[in-house]
Amino acid sequence: MSTTMPETNPQKEPNTQDTPPAKPNKGGLEGIVAATTAISKVEGTAGRLIYRGYNIHDLARTTTFEEVAHLLWFGHLPNQKELTDLKAKLVVERTLPSAVVEVLRNLPKTIEPMDALRTATSAWGAMAIQGKPTQEQAIAVTARFPLFLAAFHRLRNGLEPLESQPHLDYAGNYLYLLTGQEPKEEHVRGLNAYLVLLADHGMNASTFTARVVASTESDIVSSVVAALGALKGPLHGGAPSKVLDMLNEIGTVDNAEPWIRDAITRGGRLMGFGHRVYKTEDPRAEELRGMARVADPQGFVLARHVEELAIALLDELKPGRRLYTNVEFYSAALLSSVGLSGDLFTPTFAASRIAGWTAHIMEQVQNNRLIRPEADYIGPMDVHFVPLNER
Amino acid sequence: MSTTMPETNPQKEPNTQDTPPAKPNKGGLEGIVAATTAISKVEGTAGRLIYRGYNIHDLARTTTFEEVAHLLWFGHLPNQKELTDLKAKLVVERTLPSAVVEVLRNLPKTIEPMDALRTATSAWGAMAIQGKPTQEQAIAVTARFPLFLAAFHRLRNGLEPLESQPHLDYAGNYLYLLTGQEPKEEHVRGLNAYLVLLADHGMNASTFTARVVASTESDIVSSVVAALGALKGPLHGGAPSKVLDMLNEIGTVDNAEPWIRDAITRGGRLMGFGHRVYKTEDPRAEELRGMARVADPQGFVLARHVEELAIALLDELKPGRRLYTNVEFYSAALLSSVGLSGDLFTPTFAASRIAGWTAHIMEQVQNNRLIRPEADYIGPMDVHFVPLNER
Repeated sequence: MSTTMPETNPQKEPNTQDTPPAKPNKGGLEGIVAATTAISKVEGTAGRLIYRGYNIHDLARTTTFEEVAHLLWFGHLPNQKELTDLKAKLVVERTLPSAVVEVLRNLPKTIEPMDALRTATSAWGAMAIQGKPTQEQAIAVTARFPLFLAAFHRLRNGLEPLESQPHLDYAGNYLYLLTGQEPKEEHVRGLNAYLVLLADHGMNASTFTARVVASTESDIVSSVVAALGALKGPLHGGAPSKVLDMLNEIGTVDNAEPWIRDAITRGGRLMGFGHRVYKTEDPRAEELRGMARVADPQGFVLARHVEELAIALLDELKPGRRLYTNVEFYSAALLSSVGLSGDLFTPTFAASRIAGWTAHIMEQVQNNRLIRPEADYIGPMDVHFVPLNER
Repeated sequence: MSTTMPETNPQKEPNTQDTPPAKPNKGGLEGIVAATTAISKVEGTAGRLIYRGYNIHDLARTTTFEEVAHLLWFGHLPNQKELTDLKAKLVVERTLPSAVVEVLRNLPKTIEPMDALRTATSAWGAMAIQGKPTQEQAIAVTARFPLFLAAFHRLRNGLEPLESQPHLDYAGNYLYLLTGQEPKEEHVRGLNAYLVLLADHGMNASTFTARVVASTESDIVSSVVAALGALKGPLHGGAPSKVLDMLNEIGTVDNAEPWIRDAITRGGRLMGFGHRVYKTEDPRAEELRGMARVADPQGFVLARHVEELAIALLDELKPGRRLYTNVEFYSAALLSSVGLSGDLFTPTFAASRIAGWTAHIMEQVQNNRLIRPEADYIGPMDVHFVPLNER
């Protein structure tokens, strides 16, 4: 993806400090390597995303979530037999202990699905998981994410959770468990593409969280539950439904320019733009745009207009900080087109990223060192202690 | 704390790399500053721990958990009125929604208390917490940690959870909720000292986890639940009960030398020794030693003998890597002396560290930047994609 952006790259600034502990120039550990990994690579300047050597564009439309999970976990794309084996293992794990259903039943129906998923995963792990992380556990927790989510979604609608369908794949079974209906083929295909695109992304905040927890030699579910908490944050995975809200608020093509101008001028946040790492177009946004165009041609017209206008107006009104559409912008359109409600977008993101989280947890524990940084203390020193009765 | 150790400090090694992204020399982000903080400072070489300017030795025996929570949260030790106000706020929050009790009741009695605490906190947060972290929420979640824990402990013993006692402080109420009996004054004093000593400790792995999650603008309970997962790991807070197991296995003063020699020679791990940051005695271990001596004079004889012998034998058999007793070694003795079972040690650690976690979360969100490091990709590149039917 070549662009007109200047070729500067904050990662390339030499570190001239000679008085360690080394401080990241910009805070937030930007440009600091926290781990080595062979799982995925994000090339921010080139706008490339690589899973185990494969360009995301090659994987996006032709592989299923199961194939990509195999790739992330085992390092290579499966042949037919390996894929059949992995699918069988995932199918065997599609069970929901009644205690977990009861935990979900005891929670108010109005809670956020991300909090329900966090709680169900924690409860299930308390019962089912012991010892150090294993690949079998990675498969077991991944297989259950759609079950936890769909069970909560059914219960909040006054319906009982459904039994999984062995003939359906991960994406299709998730849609079935939500709706009770055999999913449409184009919905399964769209969801699979989404699940493939979002499955891993370098040292993003939730994956990093999972690795920090794993580095203490904690269990796999503690790591995954922690990662869910990070993904929930709007600066990470928590905001895609807000893109829909924004598009709904804009409403018409004619209203786009005044609305966006006003939002930028007032210092408001445009949803779905900008990324810490990408300095050009996010390759996942490119794929999702193509899919959204097919899935919802009518809605696409407005979304595309808003995208182009926002990029131009951001460049005009905030020059020097070129922003591009991020993965959230068209995620909203795509997930909406397969029938998911807005508050299921982020937990569905989790049902994809769980493959990457567990791959990273396994990689972390195989060559582990506790992740324990330093802090720069800027508080007072040598304060004289005065007992309570003299304060 | 002056010692005979050499004056080298891995943090002081100049960073000679000029091809960033800067890589930590030793991995695990050792020596890398992840955040600035005014909450606590750990001086590894000097063996000093500072809370907001106060030396831990000044706080350890004369302040209560509530005073130190006030210090960590608000930056100064409370006067009598401020302390009364904070205690009143904590007392008001000592309520357990029946839905959380039902969640705990649905979990098997045999699960680890850390997993029960993680699940109860997540369930409570799903119901009670919305929006960005606030100081009121920090107080609310801190006040409930002893309730979650004690409720699970009662339920697993076939007993109903008890109502909190407003006349008891944080430490005393926790002991009451566990046992149903008015706690002994020396137990409350001992537990208070423990809670004060463990309440914060720089950028340790669980606090760092909490800050990473908070940096995504997630909610306070997602951060705390993540931190619990990190604390559970044996390389962080998950091992103090194993110190007791070790002392029980050694059994007698006479058996100490052959046992320890054998353990070191076979490459086994001695529980309660060594720390990433301290290169001399951990000041908290020093305080805990003094308290353990008073609390359990008989058990102390063996513990002290094992400590001195282990340090000498580690120095003899593994020269050059001087190890000292860490905070876990005498934590086990102290917590045991106030009547806690081994599997409550780590969750009780959490009931102390929750003050520090929430202080750090508030500090993170007040001047936030997403914590999102880089990874060094060492996997394959440019792998040619082959469709499934040709693999």
